[in-house]
Amino acid sequence: MNYRIGLVGCGTVGQGLLEILDRKAASLRDQSGFEAKIVAIADKVKGNVISPQGLDIRKTLKALRQGRSLHDVDPGAAKLDGLSAADVIAAAPADIIVELTSTDLQTGEPATQHIQTALRTGKHVVTTNKGPIALHYRELRDLAAQKKRLLRFEGTVMSGTPVFTLFENGFAGNTVREISGILNGTTNFILSKMELEDMDYGAALAQAQKLGYAEADPAADVEGFDALAKAVILANVLFGADLKFEAVKPEGITGITREMIRAARAEGFRYKLVGSVRRNGSGASVGVSPRRIPLSDPLAGVMGARNALTFDLDLLGPVTIEGPGAGRVETGHAVLQDLLAIHRELT
Amino acid sequence: MNYRIGLVGCGTVGQGLLEILDRKAASLRDQSGFEAKIVAIADKVKGNVISPQGLDIRKTLKALRQGRSLHDVDPGAAKLDGLSAADVIAAAPADIIVELTSTDLQTGEPATQHIQTALRTGKHVVTTNKGPIALHYRELRDLAAQKKRLLRFEGTVMSGTPVFTLFENGFAGNTVREISGILNGTTNFILSKMELEDMDYGAALAQAQKLGYAEADPAADVEGFDALAKAVILANVLFGADLKFEAVKPEGITGITREMIRAARAEGFRYKLVGSVRRNGSGASVGVSPRRIPLSDPLAGVMGARNALTFDLDLLGPVTIEGPGAGRVETGHAVLQDLLAIHRELT
Repeated sequence: MNYRIGLVGCGTVGQGLLEILDRKAASLRDQSGFEAKIVAIADKVKGNVISPQGLDIRKTLKALRQGRSLHDVDPGAAKLDGLSAADVIAAAPADIIVELTSTDLQTGEPATQHIQTALRTGKHVVTTNKGPIALHYRELRDLAAQKKRLLRFEGTVMSGTPVFTLFENGFAGNTVREISGILNGTTNFILSKMELEDMDYGAALAQAQKLGYAEADPAADVEGFDALAKAVILANVLFGADLKFEAVKPEGITGITREMIRAARAEGFRYKLVGSVRRNGSGASVGVSPRRIPLSDPLAGVMGARNALTFDLDLLGPVTIEGPGAGRVETGHAVLQDLLAIHRELT
Repeated sequence: MNYRIGLVGCGTVGQGLLEILDRKAASLRDQSGFEAKIVAIADKVKGNVISPQGLDIRKTLKALRQGRSLHDVDPGAAKLDGLSAADVIAAAPADIIVELTSTDLQTGEPATQHIQTALRTGKHVVTTNKGPIALHYRELRDLAAQKKRLLRFEGTVMSGTPVFTLFENGFAGNTVREISGILNGTTNFILSKMELEDMDYGAALAQAQKLGYAEADPAADVEGFDALAKAVILANVLFGADLKFEAVKPEGITGITREMIRAARAEGFRYKLVGSVRRNGSGASVGVSPRRIPLSDPLAGVMGARNALTFDLDLLGPVTIEGPGAGRVETGHAVLQDLLAIHRELT
């Protein structure tokens, strides 16, 4: 199948996806029968284009890397800069919309509207945006079911490290009792630095900012909101809960001192910012807080800007997966897995 | 779909599978549309039966637990104790044969013949037996392709912890550069005991035997053959190699002393029996040996009778999965995942 894909938001993750589609085109076609062409891109900065025959991916990547407008890529493509992204989504001759705009955990917008528009106009949706899934999962899931379209979001938790595909295909039939994990790479980097280099919080945060792991305003990471969004997604998707992101208050790492870390270490413990989801009747309860975990716990070995999740399953007991939690190609990889899952579902 | 299943070998894993099929029947039907009935069992000790309408699973489990003959379960079932397992496989009115006889790494028999007979008579095959896959993967894969039947073997590596299903569904499109891991729970238990309780090898082995982790003759585990079989399976399946199990000599843990472990620990290292597979041109090379690995390596945190694998992938970098490597229900879970994978493939 040759899928017509529309990209909404074409920043680093979009470029990571395009790089993968370029590098892996032949092997994906030969091994999975999967082909893709990019028939539309909507980006606030780089412009909107619709190209029914498909954009040349290498030319598109080159233009993006050089900061040129997308209009240079295909002179025949419709230029639609007056339109909103939602209008482009509605008009795009696409089978699948890949929503990659940046996350807003207050409103979930504009991504939620983008996803709704795509589903209402008959397109499958892949997103890496945590906002819509943390805030509006049930409505979006129900809309997708009503429209008989697929909605996938592997990249919202642990970027390309498989979470939802692992659960669907590797743990089918299990009841999950608890999930706990390291869901935010920035805070794990900071805590690792503080422990391994005996740094204080401010110095470790400055390092994280210098390396691009933390934003200039690091609140979403260090106060635990990013990890909480992911925990709420896991609760609502894998436990069938209906938790509201706004109703839970995370505890971040801003109160953790070098002395606390040293004292924990002396007793065989290590501080980690742990997000957890526990079964609670027919729903689930979630929490995010720094915890002293024993060095023998698989999560204790996860150092630096890495993520890990432990699933406690009724048939299998605890299983832990550790991998990258962010990154251009890594998150592009998550989108690819979702595209391939849609392909498997449709063929 | 209601699949007709024939079980060949009905020891602990077979019973684990039956327990799961009993406990999870309703949720598997509701969530996945998967149903199964056991239409044949062939077991050297417990007898051979064919029951086209399906055996009562609870009665079967009760008879197995009480050590009674399978003939008590369904008085109407054909009693075929004069027949070989291969004859039962050929005659069974089954869609899928689940091959669970015990592993023979010298010959791969009788499981290889069982699988061949099943495929030749038009049945899909699920096995947890390492012998046929370590010794005869290519022939069996080609026979399955020729007969347009599916052959799955999730339980051969890390029991129910997803390896092949993870790779197929979570890592599609990646080239795997290297896989390394802790593939044998018995030796990991022994090394963990030696380190954490400062025991010598003999005492730790005796503990493993007492707890049922090690056989009376522990050679297959402690000399590395079990881990090697799994490494060869990974090489031949995931790297497309054509390695011969007999051609590689593993190094086991019998030469590891308490003093070596202490010395490693003092330098920040830990001994693990590591099986590894590395890309090598169009094939792969494998090795099994005890290695000093740094405590910062995710594999270092894997203690006791647990298993873990690190996949080094071109798109995603290293990803580690840690979970159980053996067990009645855990290996039954592997069979269930394969049955569900066949179900997804066929529907």
